[in-house]
Amino acid sequence: MAVLLAGHLRYDWSRPDDPANDHLIFSKGHASPLVYAMFRAAGVIDDAELLTFRKLGSRLEGHPTPILPWVDVATGSLGQGFPIAVGVALGGARVLRAPYRVWALLGDSETAEGSVWEAFERAGHEGLTNLTAIIDVNRLGQRGPTQLEWDTDRYAARARAFGWEAIVVDGHDVAAIDDAFTAASGADRPCVVIARTRKGEGVSFLADKPGWHGKTLDAEQTKQALAELGDAPSRTFEVRKPAPWAPPGITRGRPQLTAYTEPLATRKAYGETLAALGAARGDVVVLDAEVSNSTHAEDFKKEHPDRFFEMFIAEQQLVAAAVGMQVVGLVPFASTFAAFLTRAHDFIRMAAVSRANIRLSGSHAGVSIGEDGPSQMALEDLAMMRAVHGSTVLYPCDANQTAKLVAQMADLGGVSYIRTTREKTPILYRADDDFPVGGSRLVRGGGPDDRVAIVAAGITVHEAVKAADELAGEGVKVRLIDAYSVKPIDTKALTAAARATGGRIVVVEDHWPEGGIGDAVLAALAGSGELGLRYRHLAVREMPASGKPAELLHAAGISAWHIAKAARELLP
Amino acid sequence: MAVLLAGHLRYDWSRPDDPANDHLIFSKGHASPLVYAMFRAAGVIDDAELLTFRKLGSRLEGHPTPILPWVDVATGSLGQGFPIAVGVALGGARVLRAPYRVWALLGDSETAEGSVWEAFERAGHEGLTNLTAIIDVNRLGQRGPTQLEWDTDRYAARARAFGWEAIVVDGHDVAAIDDAFTAASGADRPCVVIARTRKGEGVSFLADKPGWHGKTLDAEQTKQALAELGDAPSRTFEVRKPAPWAPPGITRGRPQLTAYTEPLATRKAYGETLAALGAARGDVVVLDAEVSNSTHAEDFKKEHPDRFFEMFIAEQQLVAAAVGMQVVGLVPFASTFAAFLTRAHDFIRMAAVSRANIRLSGSHAGVSIGEDGPSQMALEDLAMMRAVHGSTVLYPCDANQTAKLVAQMADLGGVSYIRTTREKTPILYRADDDFPVGGSRLVRGGGPDDRVAIVAAGITVHEAVKAADELAGEGVKVRLIDAYSVKPIDTKALTAAARATGGRIVVVEDHWPEGGIGDAVLAALAGSGELGLRYRHLAVREMPASGKPAELLHAAGISAWHIAKAARELLP
Repeated sequence: MAVLLAGHLRYDWSRPDDPANDHLIFSKGHASPLVYAMFRAAGVIDDAELLTFRKLGSRLEGHPTPILPWVDVATGSLGQGFPIAVGVALGGARVLRAPYRVWALLGDSETAEGSVWEAFERAGHEGLTNLTAIIDVNRLGQRGPTQLEWDTDRYAARARAFGWEAIVVDGHDVAAIDDAFTAASGADRPCVVIARTRKGEGVSFLADKPGWHGKTLDAEQTKQALAELGDAPSRTFEVRKPAPWAPPGITRGRPQLTAYTEPLATRKAYGETLAALGAARGDVVVLDAEVSNSTHAEDFKKEHPDRFFEMFIAEQQLVAAAVGMQVVGLVPFASTFAAFLTRAHDFIRMAAVSRANIRLSGSHAGVSIGEDGPSQMALEDLAMMRAVHGSTVLYPCDANQTAKLVAQMADLGGVSYIRTTREKTPILYRADDDFPVGGSRLVRGGGPDDRVAIVAAGITVHEAVKAADELAGEGVKVRLIDAYSVKPIDTKALTAAARATGGRIVVVEDHWPEGGIGDAVLAALAGSGELGLRYRHLAVREMPASGKPAELLHAAGISAWHIAKAARELLP
Repeated sequence: MAVLLAGHLRYDWSRPDDPANDHLIFSKGHASPLVYAMFRAAGVIDDAELLTFRKLGSRLEGHPTPILPWVDVATGSLGQGFPIAVGVALGGARVLRAPYRVWALLGDSETAEGSVWEAFERAGHEGLTNLTAIIDVNRLGQRGPTQLEWDTDRYAARARAFGWEAIVVDGHDVAAIDDAFTAASGADRPCVVIARTRKGEGVSFLADKPGWHGKTLDAEQTKQALAELGDAPSRTFEVRKPAPWAPPGITRGRPQLTAYTEPLATRKAYGETLAALGAARGDVVVLDAEVSNSTHAEDFKKEHPDRFFEMFIAEQQLVAAAVGMQVVGLVPFASTFAAFLTRAHDFIRMAAVSRANIRLSGSHAGVSIGEDGPSQMALEDLAMMRAVHGSTVLYPCDANQTAKLVAQMADLGGVSYIRTTREKTPILYRADDDFPVGGSRLVRGGGPDDRVAIVAAGITVHEAVKAADELAGEGVKVRLIDAYSVKPIDTKALTAAARATGGRIVVVEDHWPEGGIGDAVLAALAGSGELGLRYRHLAVREMPASGKPAELLHAAGISAWHIAKAARELLP
């Protein structure tokens, strides 16, 4: 990292948003002391801040997060930073034609993650010459030796078989590393520098010794270590700035949406709206995992092939690339079957920690897909996506609604998700109807004499329409609510429905009973105080940071103090 | 597959549970017509049943599931069958010393999944000579060409770099395939047969043509195809039975649990209980993803190293191997940080479709882990695990409770999950207390004059104890419920608490607000009719199969008919 900082990285530390800056991603996020030491060496943090490491309120969390302006994405779940780096490189090479280079530091242990090989494959296939990976082969994982230990040739053979250039170096030989970085930058394909290292090199009682992972030194050990290393004063390195470069001008107009009048699958409306968005906005990019003819992302591909990314059947890389592309200001939509987004759950979770703005589309939701059977039916995606911090969860039932929601997603922050349906569904709404995020639609009823409320979304709205009309024929007035915004859900409309009907509510969803629309409806009603309950729900509502366990329980609002306070507030 | 069936597979079709049988796993589950054709060729299904393919009520679903006795596991989410096959092979080689061979058929497209390389790595590292993989390299994915098309040498180079033998064959040359299978069975390492094939071979208008994935032929096309193929009468093959073999006798006693009196982390109690279970039962196996010194699975490893499996940092392979091991009757417990189980969400989802009995342990849950920061904090695991069909979700707060719950998990069916805590927690319970699945514990209060109820689990129970004791000092009687069984949750106790306190309930959990204990509590109360609500929740409650969309909506109980019925039932 010293060689990189002093001789190869091009970065203007005073302007972390400079689009010409290189990107350095620590896929081995647990090496946070190293990345923070680099920031210290670059002169952007001082010794006092360095000593706040892992303390409550510090920017220097246990693993790096983008609350630091020089950190692109959060890492710490292994095998994620590297595939995200592939996304940053892809966006730079294929959309922005940017001069930056992407550097990714991997641990050797994390090459056990399949996602690392999805990334090798993607970058190799795309020929990303603007990407350099560095593997720190120190042969020691958290609890013992790695599988390949110091078999650097084996690492190199694997990388080459995936279409990469590979250079093996002694990771303590700075001249060899310097040469390797120079060669990597000039290679005709992505290049990985495989560095054989000794963990704890330079300190006799640490070097290549197991049992030190994540441990700190006591005062005596610190003294000895500094004596062995040479207790030199902190140095600041001069880092070369990138040559001035401005990204191409990007249009950001409003899309011309289609007015739908005939039954159409919402997945098809998704694809057509993406194509319209792509025409209006140059920053929209679309990624799909080898099912674009099913998700209908292919409608975008046909019109904007230069901004479509085929990720093949690699859902982790799909989401990681989307996260990487938003790092450089692009507006990614990533799609696959909703069931297969579960493959990328850890990446979606981490995208929230990264404060990333990504848009996901899951098609073929629920039992209504039909003959393909349960392996292809998403029945847990709403639960998964609701429990993502700051997420938005949308589930349209007709093509006009889909178009309006997809158009809004382009401007949403955080992780947003749209669930689409395989089957054609009737048109319920007009093209000029509005569907704000957080809203709902009254499909039937709405008066004070409604006797029962039905809450549905997506495919079940159409079943509920049939049921409501049947009940109307029996003289029963039904209030039918289309809860297309599953998160945030329309608490006001639900509360009013509960009030009007004396609390008679049917929720119907094409999803397992847990974590979906039913749970969302109950949480909204309980929170509004509309139920018989006087309910307080203490849970983690803001993104946590580092700190002591007791401090974090308190900061999250789930400590004894908060519990006692909530209980007192409920007393008559 | 014809060569395999006629000459290499050892299988007694009349005794699918014969422990000596080979295992054949279709990792490319969409080739279900092929596996069903094999069953027809083996004579265990007839033409009439074959023609029920993908129809409601048929055993022949769109993708294979174990409702057929000759199918080990459900496939259809690509890149899963192969890592599961590795688990079957590992269990056979290292625990049972079984004579069976495991055959896995992969599609070329699915090698884009990182999980496939986790499986290559695991099998190569373990030297699983009882495993043969076959890759059908037909160069066509669902929507177009694969990345490597017919570059079979590249596939071979990758496999060899991961420690495998690789044989490239013409996939239409039966003699070459026969030789390859013979060689594979005699290799000194796992062997992959890389078969270059033409999709639709033998039919001029299909062979190597894109656009036919998942399509059926019309009557005229069928006639032409049969004419070209030669419309031979159905044949039945004689399949060789395995040599008689009985598995080693396995002890299945009751574990001697430790009586805990001093504060201890529940993760540590988990590890110690596993070790006790391992001593009592020979069928218990433990897997961990390179964090056994944190999850404390290492306590089992130390005493039963022969039944401990280090899966390194590959959570997909971790869960897949557990699924594979339960195929052959073992009782797997798989552990990692709870946050990283999200990496294997798709595998957990599919384990439920497989009707697999696996036990998962997630340590380091919630903000209470402290300094490591949000990347390591599971705040969505309860939502993920609740929304798994047939799952059990447990969250103990002390060591004695942990021991009792872990011991019970060994006998649970389906997917069960225990969430453990990093920090030491006080001992609340006695070693002879019982903690049945589906129950709860009254920690404070319980009388008719309780004024407010607090529902907690795990780490927040201890915060709630402090709060309850503080409130008691203020003269406020609190009913504190430890909801250690999050799913199924103790509806009876919750209903009683709501009734006693006039519906004053505080739920506190170290988890995002969505999908966790709060949602579980509300769903229980709403379902019991205890709230002001007259609530009906229609959702998918049984594992779906194949059928037409309208049939499946009806079968799942979420059709217009069910909605109208539920609404009518709510009317006064």
